[in-house]
Amino acid sequence: MDKLRAIDSRMLMGPGPSDVSPRVLEALGCPTIGHLDPQFLTFLDDTRDMLRVIFQTKNPLTLAVSGTGSAGMETCVVNLIEPGDKMLVCIAGVFGMRMAEVAKRTGADVTTINVPWGQVFDEDQVAGAIDKHGPFKVVGIVHAETSTGAAQPLKEICKVVHDSGGLALADTVTSLGGMQVSVDGWKIDACYSGTQKCLSCPPGLSPVTFSPAAQEVITNRKVPVQSWYLDLNLVCQYWGSERVYHHTAPINMSYALYAACRLLLEEGLQPRWRRHMVHHQALKGGLEALGMRYLADPDHQLPMLNAVAAPDGVDEASVRSRLLNEFNIEIGAGLGEHKGKAWRIGIMGESCTRRHVEACLGALGLILSEQGVTGDAEAGVAAASASYSAWQAEPTAE
Amino acid sequence: MDKLRAIDSRMLMGPGPSDVSPRVLEALGCPTIGHLDPQFLTFLDDTRDMLRVIFQTKNPLTLAVSGTGSAGMETCVVNLIEPGDKMLVCIAGVFGMRMAEVAKRTGADVTTINVPWGQVFDEDQVAGAIDKHGPFKVVGIVHAETSTGAAQPLKEICKVVHDSGGLALADTVTSLGGMQVSVDGWKIDACYSGTQKCLSCPPGLSPVTFSPAAQEVITNRKVPVQSWYLDLNLVCQYWGSERVYHHTAPINMSYALYAACRLLLEEGLQPRWRRHMVHHQALKGGLEALGMRYLADPDHQLPMLNAVAAPDGVDEASVRSRLLNEFNIEIGAGLGEHKGKAWRIGIMGESCTRRHVEACLGALGLILSEQGVTGDAEAGVAAASASYSAWQAEPTAE
Repeated sequence: MDKLRAIDSRMLMGPGPSDVSPRVLEALGCPTIGHLDPQFLTFLDDTRDMLRVIFQTKNPLTLAVSGTGSAGMETCVVNLIEPGDKMLVCIAGVFGMRMAEVAKRTGADVTTINVPWGQVFDEDQVAGAIDKHGPFKVVGIVHAETSTGAAQPLKEICKVVHDSGGLALADTVTSLGGMQVSVDGWKIDACYSGTQKCLSCPPGLSPVTFSPAAQEVITNRKVPVQSWYLDLNLVCQYWGSERVYHHTAPINMSYALYAACRLLLEEGLQPRWRRHMVHHQALKGGLEALGMRYLADPDHQLPMLNAVAAPDGVDEASVRSRLLNEFNIEIGAGLGEHKGKAWRIGIMGESCTRRHVEACLGALGLILSEQGVTGDAEAGVAAASASYSAWQAEPTAE
Repeated sequence: MDKLRAIDSRMLMGPGPSDVSPRVLEALGCPTIGHLDPQFLTFLDDTRDMLRVIFQTKNPLTLAVSGTGSAGMETCVVNLIEPGDKMLVCIAGVFGMRMAEVAKRTGADVTTINVPWGQVFDEDQVAGAIDKHGPFKVVGIVHAETSTGAAQPLKEICKVVHDSGGLALADTVTSLGGMQVSVDGWKIDACYSGTQKCLSCPPGLSPVTFSPAAQEVITNRKVPVQSWYLDLNLVCQYWGSERVYHHTAPINMSYALYAACRLLLEEGLQPRWRRHMVHHQALKGGLEALGMRYLADPDHQLPMLNAVAAPDGVDEASVRSRLLNEFNIEIGAGLGEHKGKAWRIGIMGESCTRRHVEACLGALGLILSEQGVTGDAEAGVAAASASYSAWQAEPTAE
């Protein structure tokens, strides 16, 4: 296994996976036990309780799907939608497009509305689409659009969805654990996330939660869920007190998610959100000092995902390659219409530290100054440093 | 994380998961890196090459699905079947029933044939069903039926399927790595497995392979695959040279599968199959010496999964409980029509050793003699010991 031992550790500053704590890696390597072993079932129970705190919900139907975030998206759609049901998808980037595609394959009658990439929806736009083309059984939207770095105003949009009698479906893959996601407070009916972003757990599971109204829809379906693997009416008999075998739960990944949730709650939700904001401000200051421009509406910029245009004349792929190979820093490429033109810099969970921000700005400054894009290789780090000083000087509200 | 450190290790002798080697657990805990990191992509390539050896195939379309074995089953069905396609499913236990259910949800026109649990199909039965109700686009069968312990004659059945112009789909979740599975030799068109049985890797991935004929069917579909997550036309662009992002691969689980495949190939396929047979014979001798009766046709008994009737008057659940709580040995309960009446004892991969066999027989003998079921608590271990001696005395054919 020399090849495994020779893996070069990276600073993971792309759109996910993010760095994983040694405590979570240790959890991964704990002895595998059976999926019906009473010892294991207590981990499921504890994880569900912690996921409820993280999602800020009391929803009974809260669990981790045995697949990555995209499996979570599909789980929500296939369980809520029956063939011919009307669904509205709000598209502001790649992951909104994906949701619409998943919905079409489920037999939904899909309507889409769009804003330019990097922009956000106004609740009136959504209300207008519902008035014109609805009502819709489900309205889906991506909270934190990983392809652009923009945060959609979820609370306001959920309100107009409910006013129309629909169910609000939210993708919080990138936001959960790095900024507020208030499932009960914002009245989100179905919500899915991923483990490999701000939860800082390896990829492989997808936390999901459903409101009682959504659960009722799932329970009272006329047609079976098209996916047997993702059928929550079956899966929840295993997560529930019945413990009926459905499929073999991913034991060791479940340990990892348990450990990652523990770490998150030890830190606390608010301190963690604040941490993401502090380092985002520093990173933003640094990137702008190096001459970079953000792609998203500045009033709705995500803290954990920073999508910036690659400077004119720079071969973005070769810069990413140098960051990876010379500095062991991974950042993400542009996706969709930003392909070849942008970088996506993630500061998620364990990757959201001053060490990460300054290492990334330092390396980027060096490479860009060598290419003559910026005159001052240190400008990024200096700006970040100033930002950190300003935060430290500021009296906290607590 | 005290709770994780306090996990009682078990001897996993149920229907899976099986014991996991410390080398695989070590692999799981290696640093998480990105799914597009060139370092990680070499693990995917190596794992694919090793899976081809293990499946005994040259199929280009060979990969690990990001879900458990049931996700592999669903992947095969949803990619091969379009709504209205005719599919025959041969049912001899719970997992055949599951395949039929998955197929129905995919919109297949499903015909089923059955044999009593524990029995196997004769190829003439399958040919007869094809003549009467076919032809079928796909004929599905479970090679190693985990609910009964019977091995279906896959080679013969694949032949009659091909003679009729159909595609042969085989579930090798329990058999792969513990007995011969010859995808090219037997002309299996689509084959899925799981990681947590004879590969002795934690649950979470499903190796799959498709013949060129099956791949052509998938490529030339008229209707998109109903599952976006499991759509091989998309997934294989990531596993192929294009490396197009589809979903974030389960990085650390992929390390574990890589390590488990390495261990398997270090041992060698034939020695590993022989090992499963040697320990099966010993276990079988021991269980029968304790008065137990196998549920499957003795001519088609699986080596790695031993389903036996619980002796009359014994509360099977309390025996399993005692094995788990007093001896840290997990065995499986009966499934489906055997529920409450049988035990399923797995000797899979790392759980297939003399230590496991004798520990299980010793503990079972003790408990059953306390209940007055058997007069000689040591009879099981003695019979196993005699079986091992007979193997050692036998000249090997090599």
